[in-house]
Amino acid sequence: MNAYVADFSAPKDISRSRVEEYIFANSFDRPTLVIDTDRVARQFRALRAGLGQADIHYAVKANPAPEILHTLVGLGSHFDAASRVEIEMCLAQGARPEQVSFGNTIKKVSDIAWAHEVGINLFAADAEEELEKLAEHAPGAQVYIRLIVENCQADWPLTRKFGCAGDKAPALFAYAKELGLKPVGLSFHVGSQTRRAEMWGDVLDQVASVWANLKSEGHALDLLNIGGGFPAFYGQAIDAPEAYARQVMEMVQARFGDVARVMAEPGRGLVAEAGAIAAEVVLVSKKSENDLHRWVYLDIGRFSGLAETEGEAIRYQFATQRDHEAFAPCVLAGPSCDSADVLYERRPVELPVGLKSGDKVAIRNCGAYTSTYASVGFNGFPPLDVVVI
Amino acid sequence: MNAYVADFSAPKDISRSRVEEYIFANSFDRPTLVIDTDRVARQFRALRAGLGQADIHYAVKANPAPEILHTLVGLGSHFDAASRVEIEMCLAQGARPEQVSFGNTIKKVSDIAWAHEVGINLFAADAEEELEKLAEHAPGAQVYIRLIVENCQADWPLTRKFGCAGDKAPALFAYAKELGLKPVGLSFHVGSQTRRAEMWGDVLDQVASVWANLKSEGHALDLLNIGGGFPAFYGQAIDAPEAYARQVMEMVQARFGDVARVMAEPGRGLVAEAGAIAAEVVLVSKKSENDLHRWVYLDIGRFSGLAETEGEAIRYQFATQRDHEAFAPCVLAGPSCDSADVLYERRPVELPVGLKSGDKVAIRNCGAYTSTYASVGFNGFPPLDVVVI
Repeated sequence: MNAYVADFSAPKDISRSRVEEYIFANSFDRPTLVIDTDRVARQFRALRAGLGQADIHYAVKANPAPEILHTLVGLGSHFDAASRVEIEMCLAQGARPEQVSFGNTIKKVSDIAWAHEVGINLFAADAEEELEKLAEHAPGAQVYIRLIVENCQADWPLTRKFGCAGDKAPALFAYAKELGLKPVGLSFHVGSQTRRAEMWGDVLDQVASVWANLKSEGHALDLLNIGGGFPAFYGQAIDAPEAYARQVMEMVQARFGDVARVMAEPGRGLVAEAGAIAAEVVLVSKKSENDLHRWVYLDIGRFSGLAETEGEAIRYQFATQRDHEAFAPCVLAGPSCDSADVLYERRPVELPVGLKSGDKVAIRNCGAYTSTYASVGFNGFPPLDVVVI
Repeated sequence: MNAYVADFSAPKDISRSRVEEYIFANSFDRPTLVIDTDRVARQFRALRAGLGQADIHYAVKANPAPEILHTLVGLGSHFDAASRVEIEMCLAQGARPEQVSFGNTIKKVSDIAWAHEVGINLFAADAEEELEKLAEHAPGAQVYIRLIVENCQADWPLTRKFGCAGDKAPALFAYAKELGLKPVGLSFHVGSQTRRAEMWGDVLDQVASVWANLKSEGHALDLLNIGGGFPAFYGQAIDAPEAYARQVMEMVQARFGDVARVMAEPGRGLVAEAGAIAAEVVLVSKKSENDLHRWVYLDIGRFSGLAETEGEAIRYQFATQRDHEAFAPCVLAGPSCDSADVLYERRPVELPVGLKSGDKVAIRNCGAYTSTYASVGFNGFPPLDVVVI
């Protein structure tokens, strides 16, 4: 635990990771995500050690950089893909089709047919129409049914967008069989950024109850996909990855016993801490003489890579070259002419008082859900650049 | 007014615009924005007729499609640019530098220097540091000061991100002069999608008070930039463009008298109704047998072009090939594996009951703030394609 905590420091701690050192030692024309694939490999090994025999299916959507996929293929990772393009990216880096699952419950029929053609054989579904599409375009495929679970403990609880209610699972299992598919098990998602392993208990109980019910109805269950939710450090304490994963697996074992195949889908928990963004201060101002806080505007905002600041959900940490100076709160905003492009206003951010236009800012632990979220060219700003070191 | 209302129909009215006809007559591999530049030209002429001698500076960020810029250059429009890239786009379509203002209050110094070099001479600012940057990198340039105004009547009121408080304007005018810049006037923004001209009154009063105060302090004021806010039709009644613009100008005249130069910056109000998006239904499902509403999933969502559905702020209208059938409410969501990618849930959308996977959907009046908002490749989905007819 100690080494881990030292690695990811509190706001005013000025110890720097390798990507942060790189950011302060180099110049950048525009906001740039710097990724350390060694750090990805270290995190993968830590999670694998904790997850035991569970297969890691990296959630490609978190960051599909070819170098990350290549590193993970080399380590024997499996992959969870959201679309045809993500599957192609995995295969291009040497993943075999049987290592890739098509985990989006909302798939175009042309993508299903293409995936089936190239040998993908494991799909997610949560509805009758999706099963019909799979039966027609990927006949005989394995399918797991995604459940809705309730979890108020995650930093970013999921909506009801994905999954079906538990009482619908038996009908979907039966319908899948009737259509000639192979319903092999269940999946769920505990909620993004579930900071402590103990927060999984309640959700695992809900899934175990549906699981037991399906077994009692005579369905064979070979696969439990525990999804993602593995956290990254954004200022609030989290469990270290190996201990976290081990505790989750102990909780799984206690509720489900020996399951033939367990899958886990870390995305953020695998790559977020392996990246940082090089950004720049563009303006520091006060709106009126009576204003409590400064406004600090960066050259990156919600539409150019920091989409996860929506609702101030993910609170990134910052490093500057003034971290020895005095700090004060400020409102932090992006550079676009869009009034919604404000990062932190309700809960202002502590930044050095001396910060000014032209100062470099490293945004920490930005390896997940940044580069591909960036818009193509909103306000004429180019998407986030990516550099792998 | 009548012709206008007939053009943009209520949800179940099945009259179709030219872009909608094109969408239902053609096939698309992926979500595609179809734009009608004749419709842009018609709207420009209507707004110009109402705005009288005020210069239209098209807010390029709304949609920088080269064909739109080219059309507007041909009609004598001026342009409001948010960045170097947007200025380059305008110049590439034949705009002269003196027709382009650099309206972002948050500018990189390298962009200021470049703009000054190519002949841009009108800049926005709302803070001391921005004036210092302008004085150093665009010495002697004209600058207008943006004010914060309060308006609770717009559909999407702006935050305090842009502008300074009125009591700060005199100090910024004085400081600009001291730095050798030419402070020429004021700008403000009434709020996006201000549906009725009468909603401008209160905001114009606030600006007029600052204006009078500056004049009484001996500042010459040659420029009033009334910004955007010109509405598009999203289901709620709006004034027709010419009448709307004329009424706004009458209100301006009543409060400011004869101003040497008035600028207006329509974006949405100029191009939104000239475009529609071709999309497709990917899945229709119920989460449980007891659910009140269906979920309908499209192949486009918040991260691939419909960013303005955030908070359900902009409520797009839809056309399908089942618009003669029965309708019922549904929750509408995008295709990505992101739980935040839900378009309308708090206020469900009325769509045909028979809708199913593969059905085409035209999303109406999508010409503004869609194509450039799309992410580069979130979840492996490509950005919105654009076709100009």
